[in-house]
Amino acid sequence: MTLTVVGSIAFDAVETPSGSRDRLLGGAAVHFALASSQLAETRVVGPVGDDFGEPEYAILHARGVNTDDVEHVPGGKTFFWAGRYHRDINRRDTLQTDLNVFEDFEPKLSPAARDAEVLFLGNIQPDLQSDVREQCTAARFVAMDSMNLWIDIAHDALVNTIGLVDCLLLNDSELKQLTDEPNLIRAARRALDLGPRVIIAKQGEYGSAMITRDGYFGLTAYPTADIVEPTGAGDSYAGGLMGYLAAQGGDVDDATLRRAMAYGTACASFNVEGFGSERLYALERAEIDARVAELEAISRF
Amino acid sequence: MTLTVVGSIAFDAVETPSGSRDRLLGGAAVHFALASSQLAETRVVGPVGDDFGEPEYAILHARGVNTDDVEHVPGGKTFFWAGRYHRDINRRDTLQTDLNVFEDFEPKLSPAARDAEVLFLGNIQPDLQSDVREQCTAARFVAMDSMNLWIDIAHDALVNTIGLVDCLLLNDSELKQLTDEPNLIRAARRALDLGPRVIIAKQGEYGSAMITRDGYFGLTAYPTADIVEPTGAGDSYAGGLMGYLAAQGGDVDDATLRRAMAYGTACASFNVEGFGSERLYALERAEIDARVAELEAISRF
Repeated sequence: MTLTVVGSIAFDAVETPSGSRDRLLGGAAVHFALASSQLAETRVVGPVGDDFGEPEYAILHARGVNTDDVEHVPGGKTFFWAGRYHRDINRRDTLQTDLNVFEDFEPKLSPAARDAEVLFLGNIQPDLQSDVREQCTAARFVAMDSMNLWIDIAHDALVNTIGLVDCLLLNDSELKQLTDEPNLIRAARRALDLGPRVIIAKQGEYGSAMITRDGYFGLTAYPTADIVEPTGAGDSYAGGLMGYLAAQGGDVDDATLRRAMAYGTACASFNVEGFGSERLYALERAEIDARVAELEAISRF
Repeated sequence: MTLTVVGSIAFDAVETPSGSRDRLLGGAAVHFALASSQLAETRVVGPVGDDFGEPEYAILHARGVNTDDVEHVPGGKTFFWAGRYHRDINRRDTLQTDLNVFEDFEPKLSPAARDAEVLFLGNIQPDLQSDVREQCTAARFVAMDSMNLWIDIAHDALVNTIGLVDCLLLNDSELKQLTDEPNLIRAARRALDLGPRVIIAKQGEYGSAMITRDGYFGLTAYPTADIVEPTGAGDSYAGGLMGYLAAQGGDVDDATLRRAMAYGTACASFNVEGFGSERLYALERAEIDARVAELEAISRF
């Protein structure tokens, strides 16, 4: 099935205790697509400015990402984020956020992008997510991400959007914040009451969990001793997950979702092995499959 | 194989948002034994005061726990702990700690206790753990717990004790604190360098992970929506784990350890369903086996 992702495209500057980069290709839609494109053809919808040029497109095209729906805003600058990671790489401080062209982003989907059967609504303002969701009338499986900012300042709009999707993918802490419920299972049940049939909680170094009306699945993270830089790990997870689902076709059942989570976990584990998503640029599909097999082996008893 | 556990025996007073108890049978060795005794005969070594009487022994004996090595200190009072849990039940404040007879505890093992083939050194002062370890010359598999207090004030003694055991079982955060290493895998490798061949990190609501020289295993927690009161969950985990190992006999290999972790997880999940370890008092072995089977089903893909 065809896959469309809507979200940010960015340049990131990051500092870690072991090194820094001042201009990395980033943004949720990019991290997503560099993972998902390993598994299914992916169309990216997002805005860029004049500073986004051939070198950036070349990285995406090398992976077969379809960029026809990348919107160039003349005279604008691409979204820029800068952050500094601590020695505990799970902690970071944001140093700078320049929304630039992302501030006035209104997703305009081409007919081909609208025809996607699998749709991922990256973390953008919830009303824009709803708008995209409604444009994509052919979508058979729709998932979305969000963040604490929208839970705080656009709660009602976010709840409305959640009612329009099949799967809500959030950080563990955001899911608890959204539902004001500190227990994961209760939080997920409240989120299911909003409409989706699948809730997936991303738990960072601990793995991820899927909660449905009648089921639960918990998957360990891939054990990585040397994390270089984790920006975009959650987006790579979403990309691996949705790319696998798009590649399967047919119904999205429990067994398929479980395996999709393993693909998400594998993609995220590669993401953290380099700055930005650099580790994904030249990754082979066979490396992902091998890591999924490894995940299977390290989670069975 | 026979199983001995050395550790605290206590009375606990707890408050939660949904209720409170002012005198619960507690202490690490008790929580441990109420779980382990489901799987293997367990001998408890620990001190009690005059306030510890027939009702408490009756609970332990009903589960077949051997209390011959429970040391009654005449004129003394049993260790007492009081705490208050938050709405987020993973957070708690200690309100009172009276060590009482536990303060001068010096484990004296009977010949039968010393003959145990499987030994668990509960969280007591590390030099006392070493002393017990050295008394148990027949032990074929020894595991230990500890806590942040000993990492802070008895670091060298703790490191020495770790060098004497097969398996170090710690909270995820304690393992990172012990090794001054925020990455779990690196932390575990440093701990392996101290001597044990198995490191198990307890990750609370996220599950647990085992790290050895050449392997990794990650297991989800059991998804519990209604946690009543979690005191002793980690000790019940240890009890299920070690009870299973003692029941198996033979070599403690990777597959056995993985299944033992599932038994630990199952026992911990029952523990949190009631105040203290009350849920374990009348638990049937078949209920534990069923939950282990459920864990297998919810962690496979």
